[in-house]
Amino acid sequence: MATRWGICGAGCISHDFCVALKTLSPKDHQLVAVAARSLESAKKFAKTHEIPTAYGSYEELVKDPNIDVVYIGVVQSHHLQVGLLFLNAGKNVLCEKPFAMNLREVRQLISAARENNVFLMEAVWSRCFPAYAEVRRLLSEKTIGDVRMVKVYFGLPLLDRERTTQKGGGSLMDIGVYCVQFALMAFNGERPQSIHTTAALLPSGVDESIVVVLKFSGNRMAICACTIDCNLPNDATICGTKGIIRVPHPMHAPTIVEVNGEKTEFPLPEPGLPLNFHNSTGLRYEAEEVRRCLLEGLKESVKMSLADSEMLIEVMDEARRQAGVVYDQDSQ
Amino acid sequence: MATRWGICGAGCISHDFCVALKTLSPKDHQLVAVAARSLESAKKFAKTHEIPTAYGSYEELVKDPNIDVVYIGVVQSHHLQVGLLFLNAGKNVLCEKPFAMNLREVRQLISAARENNVFLMEAVWSRCFPAYAEVRRLLSEKTIGDVRMVKVYFGLPLLDRERTTQKGGGSLMDIGVYCVQFALMAFNGERPQSIHTTAALLPSGVDESIVVVLKFSGNRMAICACTIDCNLPNDATICGTKGIIRVPHPMHAPTIVEVNGEKTEFPLPEPGLPLNFHNSTGLRYEAEEVRRCLLEGLKESVKMSLADSEMLIEVMDEARRQAGVVYDQDSQ
Repeated sequence: MATRWGICGAGCISHDFCVALKTLSPKDHQLVAVAARSLESAKKFAKTHEIPTAYGSYEELVKDPNIDVVYIGVVQSHHLQVGLLFLNAGKNVLCEKPFAMNLREVRQLISAARENNVFLMEAVWSRCFPAYAEVRRLLSEKTIGDVRMVKVYFGLPLLDRERTTQKGGGSLMDIGVYCVQFALMAFNGERPQSIHTTAALLPSGVDESIVVVLKFSGNRMAICACTIDCNLPNDATICGTKGIIRVPHPMHAPTIVEVNGEKTEFPLPEPGLPLNFHNSTGLRYEAEEVRRCLLEGLKESVKMSLADSEMLIEVMDEARRQAGVVYDQDSQ
Repeated sequence: MATRWGICGAGCISHDFCVALKTLSPKDHQLVAVAARSLESAKKFAKTHEIPTAYGSYEELVKDPNIDVVYIGVVQSHHLQVGLLFLNAGKNVLCEKPFAMNLREVRQLISAARENNVFLMEAVWSRCFPAYAEVRRLLSEKTIGDVRMVKVYFGLPLLDRERTTQKGGGSLMDIGVYCVQFALMAFNGERPQSIHTTAALLPSGVDESIVVVLKFSGNRMAICACTIDCNLPNDATICGTKGIIRVPHPMHAPTIVEVNGEKTEFPLPEPGLPLNFHNSTGLRYEAEEVRRCLLEGLKESVKMSLADSEMLIEVMDEARRQAGVVYDQDSQ
């Protein structure tokens, strides 16, 4: 039986998610409905992706009984409100990252999922890539010995889409989330002992560039650096006592893993329509993970557990606090 | 007329310096004398490198009238004392890095050089490599636009040669100095606005690993990370508004510069004897720079000026202060 998807939000990332879903078997994944704030854009989106039903409000999607799981692709400042809408209606949810604006909001989403006994996952799609599975395998087999230092970079010139504090903008929330989640994965979900942040803010109050240095037990460290000002190499490197694992550009959606310079490739399928984001047919892997979890009756994924999401936002909250980036939602 | 070199210290780095000198024309560079704390090791060193005179004390080298410039290759905790000995005797000096243990000591060396009107240079050999000249040329011609973020890594498993606080040990002073000098060069000698340090200390009180994040004017940043615990990629990357310059491993003694992935090579000559350090025939470039300065009557080099050395140690002092690494010399 196919997993029946409802799409919430008709923007760029929802587009790519649907294109990625089409690279999987229609026996496994069906696009059933899309909801947007305007019926017109929902209809246009539905036509592009051959989705049978289009709704001009999220509330209509909530009431659709033919949906197994909702993909939330709206802007992050609306994740809490929209997420609660679906979770409290008993719908399973895959919600785009960042999960919400701060720890308080993330905990509200998690509580709602638990109270309603539904599946919830933050759409950190990177975690579901075969390349990341390979990295985790290499780490668990101690191929590079013990992990000592991790460095992750993500920089893109995105100043034209600068968002305000109201909308949850800034380099850390927009793309730095990929660096932090990688570092936390490399240290196997361990809580950092300390967090040191250096940030450069824009006039809007959000961070243009930010460097977050995490210190873990046993003198181990991670460096996460991101900017919306220019391109960085956008790779991730795990340095161990016996060697180095490198995930080259784009480390957040990778097709290559290098172990001491030796490459293994994990190619992506070709998309059926043009994409907005690099390598985003790789969104298919998180769709597959959601389907697997639903079939097994799981309420969260081990690849990006709800505890993982909590720690991720905790680290970002502390980094933002040190950087002096305050969102309107922080005072609520 | 050849530049007549006196070698102070018969250790590993002095060995490599003499091997590198031999890759240059004997018409330009002559090894005249070597001094060590024991006459036996000075004689052995002199025999290996075909140096006419061997002294069993530094004081004898001070009195040798046939020396144009002294290369100081002793351990960093002795740089001040030994440096003052030569400078106050009116000898020109090229002194290994780190220049001395802290800013106070570095200023004493600089004052002595100025009072005696002699040449003085910190042996940051990296700065004299053709590859660094190419980097500076690319930066001045704005080939990659404006510099926005710089990252420099240096990690080697050197725990077996862990030095105490008394001897000036630790990853920052031993190898991190290469990262900091690169960052300062990339920002053209500008003083950082802020310094944020994360460090992991060893039981001896020195830093095993350290990450120093420098923030410069205009929201620009540099990340310097080093460790004596394991290998890192040991490369330097300068990210600008129009592209990326990369100096691959070993960034402190490089033979390659990459501009947006396109490589230019600067090969080194073959050494006549086995070397202790990677690519260290490249020490020839600092010898050539010293000769050029002496011939032109200069008292310092623009490639590593005394102001550059002061700022370098100032940054390292502040990073050490934040890290809690205190040398015995700091309280004097």
